[in-house]
Amino acid sequence: MSRRLFAEFFGTFWLVFGGCGAAVIAAAFPELGIGFVGVALAFGLTVLTMAYAVGGISGGHFNPAVSVGLLVAGRFEARELVPYVVAQLIGAVAAGAVLYLVVSGRADFTSVGGFASNGYGAASPGGYSMTSALVIEVLLTFFFLLIILGSTSNRVPAGFAPIAIGLALTLIHLISIPVTNTSVNPARSTGVALFAEGPALAQLWLFWVAPIVGAALAGIVYNALLNDD
Amino acid sequence: MSRRLFAEFFGTFWLVFGGCGAAVIAAAFPELGIGFVGVALAFGLTVLTMAYAVGGISGGHFNPAVSVGLLVAGRFEARELVPYVVAQLIGAVAAGAVLYLVVSGRADFTSVGGFASNGYGAASPGGYSMTSALVIEVLLTFFFLLIILGSTSNRVPAGFAPIAIGLALTLIHLISIPVTNTSVNPARSTGVALFAEGPALAQLWLFWVAPIVGAALAGIVYNALLNDD
Amino acid sequence: MSRRLFAEFFGTFWLVFGGCGAAVIAAAFPELGIGFVGVALAFGLTVLTMAYAVGGISGGHFNPAVSVGLLVAGRFEARELVPYVVAQLIGAVAAGAVLYLVVSGRADFTSVGGFASNGYGAASPGGYSMTSALVIEVLLTFFFLLIILGSTSNRVPAGFAPIAIGLALTLIHLISIPVTNTSVNPARSTGVALFAEGPALAQLWLFWVAPIVGAALAGIVYNALLNDD
Amino acid sequence: MSRRLFAEFFGTFWLVFGGCGAAVIAAAFPELGIGFVGVALAFGLTVLTMAYAVGGISGGHFNPAVSVGLLVAGRFEARELVPYVVAQLIGAVAAGAVLYLVVSGRADFTSVGGFASNGYGAASPGGYSMTSALVIEVLLTFFFLLIILGSTSNRVPAGFAPIAIGLALTLIHLISIPVTNTSVNPARSTGVALFAEGPALAQLWLFWVAPIVGAALAGIVYNALLNDD
Repeated sequence: MSRRLFAEFFGTFWLVFGGCGAAVIAAAFPELGIGFVGVALAFGLTVLTMAYAVGGISGGHFNPAVSVGLLVAGRFEARELVPYVVAQLIGAVAAGAVLYLVVSGRADFTSVGGFASNGYGAASPGGYSMTSALVIEVLLTFFFLLIILGSTSNRVPAGFAPIAIGLALTLIHLISIPVTNTSVNPARSTGVALFAEGPALAQLWLFWVAPIVGAALAGIVYNALLNDD
Repeated sequence: MSRRLFAEFFGTFWLVFGGCGAAVIAAAFPELGIGFVGVALAFGLTVLTMAYAVGGISGGHFNPAVSVGLLVAGRFEARELVPYVVAQLIGAVAAGAVLYLVVSGRADFTSVGGFASNGYGAASPGGYSMTSALVIEVLLTFFFLLIILGSTSNRVPAGFAPIAIGLALTLIHLISIPVTNTSVNPARSTGVALFAEGPALAQLWLFWVAPIVGAALAGIVYNALLNDD
Repeated sequence: MSRRLFAEFFGTFWLVFGGCGAAVIAAAFPELGIGFVGVALAFGLTVLTMAYAVGGISGGHFNPAVSVGLLVAGRFEARELVPYVVAQLIGAVAAGAVLYLVVSGRADFTSVGGFASNGYGAASPGGYSMTSALVIEVLLTFFFLLIILGSTSNRVPAGFAPIAIGLALTLIHLISIPVTNTSVNPARSTGVALFAEGPALAQLWLFWVAPIVGAALAGIVYNALLNDD
Repeated sequence: MSRRLFAEFFGTFWLVFGGCGAAVIAAAFPELGIGFVGVALAFGLTVLTMAYAVGGISGGHFNPAVSVGLLVAGRFEARELVPYVVAQLIGAVAAGAVLYLVVSGRADFTSVGGFASNGYGAASPGGYSMTSALVIEVLLTFFFLLIILGSTSNRVPAGFAPIAIGLALTLIHLISIPVTNTSVNPARSTGVALFAEGPALAQLWLFWVAPIVGAALAGIVYNALLNDD
């Protein structure tokens, strides 16, 4: 396993452990809990911090949809896609497992419940339909990739992209946690679905399909309408 | 339609979908909702992220008042004003429509209500008068443009302006959501007014007049009192 | 009045209108209010945004204590102190007046109450003593100036200081709003004390003395123990 | 005492006074309190601000675990470890003492209670076990050091590291306040344990062992798997 794949492993571990950990451990703490604002901030900061830490090694995808979007846009090589996605998935599942270990050490622990998994219909935090879930996951991943492609272009001075990209993920969560609990990242969805109670595994397909479709569309649209390189 | 206009279209779509989406979908979620802090953060991050993504293409206005202010300050050409504003409006209205689609997929959906529209008097979240609304929208857009003009001047190292400008919009919302639900952007107001219930369309004039007046004043004042280029 | 003084006028107006405006208008809004976190963010962002906008013109003090601290550290000329402080005070009082105008337009307006003024003893939000108020205002202004002096030194790449300084003011508010409502800035305290009900004017002396003492100490300590220029 | 040690003293004082001060003074203020989100932001901003202010002097560790991790990674000299840790501890304990002074000036003061100290089992805010505490403190300090090592590498343009590192500490608190009240820093734990009621001193060993183990592991892993210098 190369340095690049270790970077993707650690980055995706951090994204899932940090984002989902904040949601599971701290969001609903009585009186002082961080709520959706804190969870949104946590997800974004996992990407901001690890993009600075290891983005220079692997590009800092931490997300199969991002890898696909960059591939479609011609910024990532096809032969690297499978190793990247495998490293991301191993990181995500490992994070889910360690988070399970931590959470199960709570004195009043009985079950992990939804475990910050993604869902629609009855499994949507706000009761949004499958159609709403599809639309918003495609749309938000589409814009996530536009921001990634644009902020890493040569129009932006070096060093700012992790701020733009990390805070884009925060913004995406500020909008959509009530709809799907926010995925835009198949690895993040998979990493906790394996441990969650409820329909998370049965609904996991949507959180692979929609983010990847949105990301691929962004790769096409960016090059067709916005790119000037 | 040129790359510049596509950039304005996507940027304004993101501003309206992200900011108003966070307000409509997530602000008042029981217990864990993001409140006005989260909405303020969301609006600011739409601009921060898209200014990095496409600001280098179009200048990243995403707002007719910004285009007018830059025009008055001599930083934007008059012949581009109408195309820019049209692209911004198309983006804003498209965002309102897609947000309507997502929100109408909620299991307990009956109506969109105010739909994050702007208002004064009985339509002001905190019951502020039309005069208060006029004063604060003029004033906040005036300072928004001072910050845009100053942070994009050659006194500031390249790359920092999107942080200053995006977080200025966050600040503006932290102050004024209770007064008018915060506009400072005629396109944002228009994009949701078309779908909102209540007096949003009847009051829309104020959210064109006040931001544009404030922005134009800023263009004059900046050049007269602060500019040294 | 020179460009430098206009910059201080606008910057201090923005600091007082933005920070105190967020506190008065939005902090305690039912259910969705921004709370002390939002107020802390607002104060910090007023400085971050205007430091980018006009910091290159005047240095971006917006605060008599900052001007004194920089003077003691040898970074600001004595003959400029009085004009700067006058411009800051005019900006602060003008902001208080406009904020009064906006707030008095609320349908259920009866009085401005504390109007985000600073206080101790019975006027402290959390009932802290005058000694606690003195200690924390001296200490926090001391560190505010250490951060200003350090982040504007030639050890830090150009462009980052407004982020460090603005977010330092956010941090200072996160700590100390319950103690004194947080001043560290005599102009900010004065700008609202003139309009506030209660003992704000009678207690105003502390919010001139403590910040200026803390800032002057920082100027001495920084040069003696930390400076290597 | 050299400039470097003064920088560590002031930086660690600020970290403990700012982070623990926000927790003790402002977190649980009725209605408007900053909650865990505000405390997380406060801890992160202490590091962000002082890393800009004095990071160029001492490296900006402010934390014995960070000093150990950098030593293991070959970025810090062994003969400097003890002086650094002593300066950090003096700063942390001084901050605890001043915070005690401020807090004891509250009109209804009876005792400091937990005083933002760290704990596990019955002393964990959410009732998490010693095992959960060990796992999460090792893991979070491990990632904190990965981010420090990566963001200060020559792959990242100069100036951004304080943002990445400070916001990493914010993120770490967003995840883990309910588990241990979040340490990842033996000096921070010690500075308040000396003044706290309850088992803080008896449990202090864990908040030396776990962060140092995590940091040392990160130094080894970073060099073995990620470093390319």
